[in-house]
Amino acid sequence: MRKNDRRKREPDEQEQTALYEGRNAVTELLRAGKTVDKLFVSADVRGRMADICAMAKQAGAVIVECDRRKLDAMSETGVHQGVIAQAAAHEYVSVADLLEVARARGEQPFLLLCDGLTDPHNLGAVIRSAETAGAHGVIIPKRRSVGLTATAAKASAGAIEHIGVARVTNLAATIDELKDAGVWVFGADAGGDKNLYEADFVGATAIVIGSEGSGLSRIVREKCDFIVSIPMKGRVNSLNASAAAAVLLYEAVRQRSQEG
Amino acid sequence: MRKNDRRKREPDEQEQTALYEGRNAVTELLRAGKTVDKLFVSADVRGRMADICAMAKQAGAVIVECDRRKLDAMSETGVHQGVIAQAAAHEYVSVADLLEVARARGEQPFLLLCDGLTDPHNLGAVIRSAETAGAHGVIIPKRRSVGLTATAAKASAGAIEHIGVARVTNLAATIDELKDAGVWVFGADAGGDKNLYEADFVGATAIVIGSEGSGLSRIVREKCDFIVSIPMKGRVNSLNASAAAAVLLYEAVRQRSQEG
Repeated sequence: MRKNDRRKREPDEQEQTALYEGRNAVTELLRAGKTVDKLFVSADVRGRMADICAMAKQAGAVIVECDRRKLDAMSETGVHQGVIAQAAAHEYVSVADLLEVARARGEQPFLLLCDGLTDPHNLGAVIRSAETAGAHGVIIPKRRSVGLTATAAKASAGAIEHIGVARVTNLAATIDELKDAGVWVFGADAGGDKNLYEADFVGATAIVIGSEGSGLSRIVREKCDFIVSIPMKGRVNSLNASAAAAVLLYEAVRQRSQEG
Repeated sequence: MRKNDRRKREPDEQEQTALYEGRNAVTELLRAGKTVDKLFVSADVRGRMADICAMAKQAGAVIVECDRRKLDAMSETGVHQGVIAQAAAHEYVSVADLLEVARARGEQPFLLLCDGLTDPHNLGAVIRSAETAGAHGVIIPKRRSVGLTATAAKASAGAIEHIGVARVTNLAATIDELKDAGVWVFGADAGGDKNLYEADFVGATAIVIGSEGSGLSRIVREKCDFIVSIPMKGRVNSLNASAAAAVLLYEAVRQRSQEG
């Protein structure tokens, strides 16, 4: 059983793009200012890696203390010395950067938040749809979400080069920030107050879509100004996450094109 | 090189669901009236398989005469005797059946045609979106298109059990039939006469989406009553096929909900 489990995990880990292994490679990566998603440190050398952990934490990485055998299983080189950094395929930007894009274009902010997508193909497709819809950026959480892996980048069909993605520690706190900045936040979920066609996406708008399996998390759902639903006319009770994102984004495009 | 090519093909072939191998298995499959996508026959025994080929052709299967080594590579049992049938995971229905669904519901026909999707995940996602949008059916061509494989069924999240899929020999001819039945046919493609928000999806409607790589084929494009475009506001010039389908289907839902 354990062997099977490990085998099942491998493809995921390979999709997490570049791994930097060993003290020197990881230190240089951090010094270069590159975004590190996660720093995996073997518990038995955690003490000796205190400096690297501090740098990584400073740079916004999630520190994962784990068993040396996990590092052995992840390692591509076999000489990880107890530390492996997982770096994003692309650089992230800040939420402020995304709002600045809207300002520079002279448009009302138009953002997409993804509350915990786990499939890199879905994230890539969502980024692609956001870019073609003219959104100003995509926001994803650091934890319990796939990041900008090589697979996500590929599924975005190049969109990732043209639209900023911000990765935040706490999506609920980011929603508060957006609300403070005058942005209306629309959570997409079943059982909403209204359907998406009744929502007003013409003003400063952030649309939040949930994860593939379980939709919006409770805390994120509560933070939203409105919950809007996509009508389900058949027997299946939800759309694929990237299809739902496309439908919502393009309803905003429709409303905004008729306003202009 | 040849070995690599073969290895690359294998996952696709495994996704084509059930393979029935050998004279007896294939004959029984055909006698049971089950839908056979393709019948692969080794050229060196084609003469002795004339009866099976005739039955398969009668049942609408595509007959593929090929080298015995191809059958060896496909075979799961190793005893194919020169004939392998590939059967769909689910049964197909006819275009008339789909129009009958619309009639029975007292609704204007609302169909989705897919002009050559090759990724079973995309086909599954498209079927799911069509079902949730309340469409009456999905139409795909026999050739140059993925069929209802196990992967497509899984990606449809069960939608395949609730919406009919018709598989036709000639999509252009089917478009003519639909037009004769009073259905307006809207091809989705760049450079359309109008954007989708200007189109009228309230009447009897069939929406045609193109393949992942190359959009609508020339002959299908020419057959459509209208070509409608989804606005591309960014630098990337197309949506993912299943995202595009969802956007079009839900614009129809919006228009129809405001009509009712």
